[in-house]
Amino acid sequence: MSRKLATLSLGLGAVLGFSAARLWRPSGGQEEEPGLALLDLPVLPVPSVHADSGLTLSHSVGGGAVMKYGFPSLSNIRTRESYVSSYDPRTRTPAWVVERIAGDTLGGTADRKNCDFKEDDSVHEFHRATNADYKGSGLDRGHMAAAANHKWSQKAMGDTFYLSNVAPQNPHLNQNAWNNLEKLCRSLSKHYANVYVCTGPLYLPRQEADGKLYVHYRVLGRNHVAVPTHFFKVLILERRGVPGVELRSYVLPNEPVDDKIPLERFLVPIESVERASGLLFVPNIARTGGGAITTVTGKSALKAIM
Amino acid sequence: MSRKLATLSLGLGAVLGFSAARLWRPSGGQEEEPGLALLDLPVLPVPSVHADSGLTLSHSVGGGAVMKYGFPSLSNIRTRESYVSSYDPRTRTPAWVVERIAGDTLGGTADRKNCDFKEDDSVHEFHRATNADYKGSGLDRGHMAAAANHKWSQKAMGDTFYLSNVAPQNPHLNQNAWNNLEKLCRSLSKHYANVYVCTGPLYLPRQEADGKLYVHYRVLGRNHVAVPTHFFKVLILERRGVPGVELRSYVLPNEPVDDKIPLERFLVPIESVERASGLLFVPNIARTGGGAITTVTGKSALKAIM
Repeated sequence: MSRKLATLSLGLGAVLGFSAARLWRPSGGQEEEPGLALLDLPVLPVPSVHADSGLTLSHSVGGGAVMKYGFPSLSNIRTRESYVSSYDPRTRTPAWVVERIAGDTLGGTADRKNCDFKEDDSVHEFHRATNADYKGSGLDRGHMAAAANHKWSQKAMGDTFYLSNVAPQNPHLNQNAWNNLEKLCRSLSKHYANVYVCTGPLYLPRQEADGKLYVHYRVLGRNHVAVPTHFFKVLILERRGVPGVELRSYVLPNEPVDDKIPLERFLVPIESVERASGLLFVPNIARTGGGAITTVTGKSALKAIM
Repeated sequence: MSRKLATLSLGLGAVLGFSAARLWRPSGGQEEEPGLALLDLPVLPVPSVHADSGLTLSHSVGGGAVMKYGFPSLSNIRTRESYVSSYDPRTRTPAWVVERIAGDTLGGTADRKNCDFKEDDSVHEFHRATNADYKGSGLDRGHMAAAANHKWSQKAMGDTFYLSNVAPQNPHLNQNAWNNLEKLCRSLSKHYANVYVCTGPLYLPRQEADGKLYVHYRVLGRNHVAVPTHFFKVLILERRGVPGVELRSYVLPNEPVDDKIPLERFLVPIESVERASGLLFVPNIARTGGGAITTVTGKSALKAIM
């Protein structure tokens, strides 16, 4: 497992110009303390910015609160009850999906039994994923904005079942480590005033036998829905009564991940996600404000940067 | 050669739900007449539309004439002296570049000896291709909007040397078959009032040993500049004195292509390019008008559709 992940993480490492093994060592090593509490992780200071923290926060996507910290890109934006997304018509998956999680979005009686995965008719049929594309693929229809984050409204939950909020995901990952990451996001909403989560696919290169770097991914069905090599979640956390935001960026490979590996081992520098995804987070947050930005990174990632 | 291309074209064929061998048989076969003149190719009627053919056409990109037939996508648009482009920050190459070629753009004294490939500072450094990325890769910096199309102004030609107008291209392809396709575009401008050319990269899947479809491409340098598997050119041709436009869509693999193979063998249905690229051409042309649209396709492609 550890060797495979080290290889998979080569893309990020090579981008940043340092060893992938140092950046990302999720299997645990002697240099790492076991059981490092997430909330106790060291923080990397980023140049401070000023913020308008008085912006009204509500469920309402239409009210713009979900996008308080800016748009990672401006391509093919879709606004739903529970999230805002950017669709990638070439891969037939979202490029990113942003949702806000807080106490008021988690409570409620919406039930996923009433939800079915559905095509997004707002996407041109040439670029639209269908349920038939996933059928028999052996891959899950993996939610980007998670259904369980939006129990506050049946429509909000239902909107997470658009296939434009979905990407092909390894079933083991989806049902274990990824599910745990989604749970972590929800549990963080108890400690923070608001949790903004941006989720999306990555297509990371790896070194092949000829020594060169290649991107290699499967496509599903008649519409060639791309199977990402990795997924990212960028968390923007608003502390209660304290100005500024905290950033955490996770990258997990789209394959079985032992859920005994602590999630903090998958923390990566936000710059890694920005480079690999073609998106930008930090400049937007700086522009929209929020006080100082602190970036939470794993111990190994920190060591690689400093 | 022919077997390899048939495999490479599987992506398009599979998308369209018919045999790639029927769609795309560039090596020539007994069913095809040799020396089929391009201008004599059969045309596929597309539902007719009405057009404002009175729009003023000028060099001026700022005047919008270059984009007369609409934007294939609206992501990261850049407007230059000689072309309009959409940049893909994930692949570090353009998604598409549109230029207009006509008698008035081809004449002039601009010289490529005065041009150097240059980074595009308007792209965030995380997503920007550099000359260093290409160095030692064995691949050319392949122009999307071609330098020789813009002899009318040294600045117009110089703008084609931005690396945001460039993608890694096999040197043999660039200097032979692709060069011939660029020459064809210029020669068509003698027969048509205006030639609008949209050029871009493709990442087509191919079947691997396990029977599944995969996209596989190399990335170059520190910034992981993607090496496309194929390139497309979509030509929108305005006939003199006749309303309506003619469409021709070419797809060439990013590998050595025998330049004895007639270029019309690389004609594909426009729908193939639209599906594979995530872009749309026909709806835009229909919206912006121009009279009836006729689609020129190769004989084999025609047979596959009809």
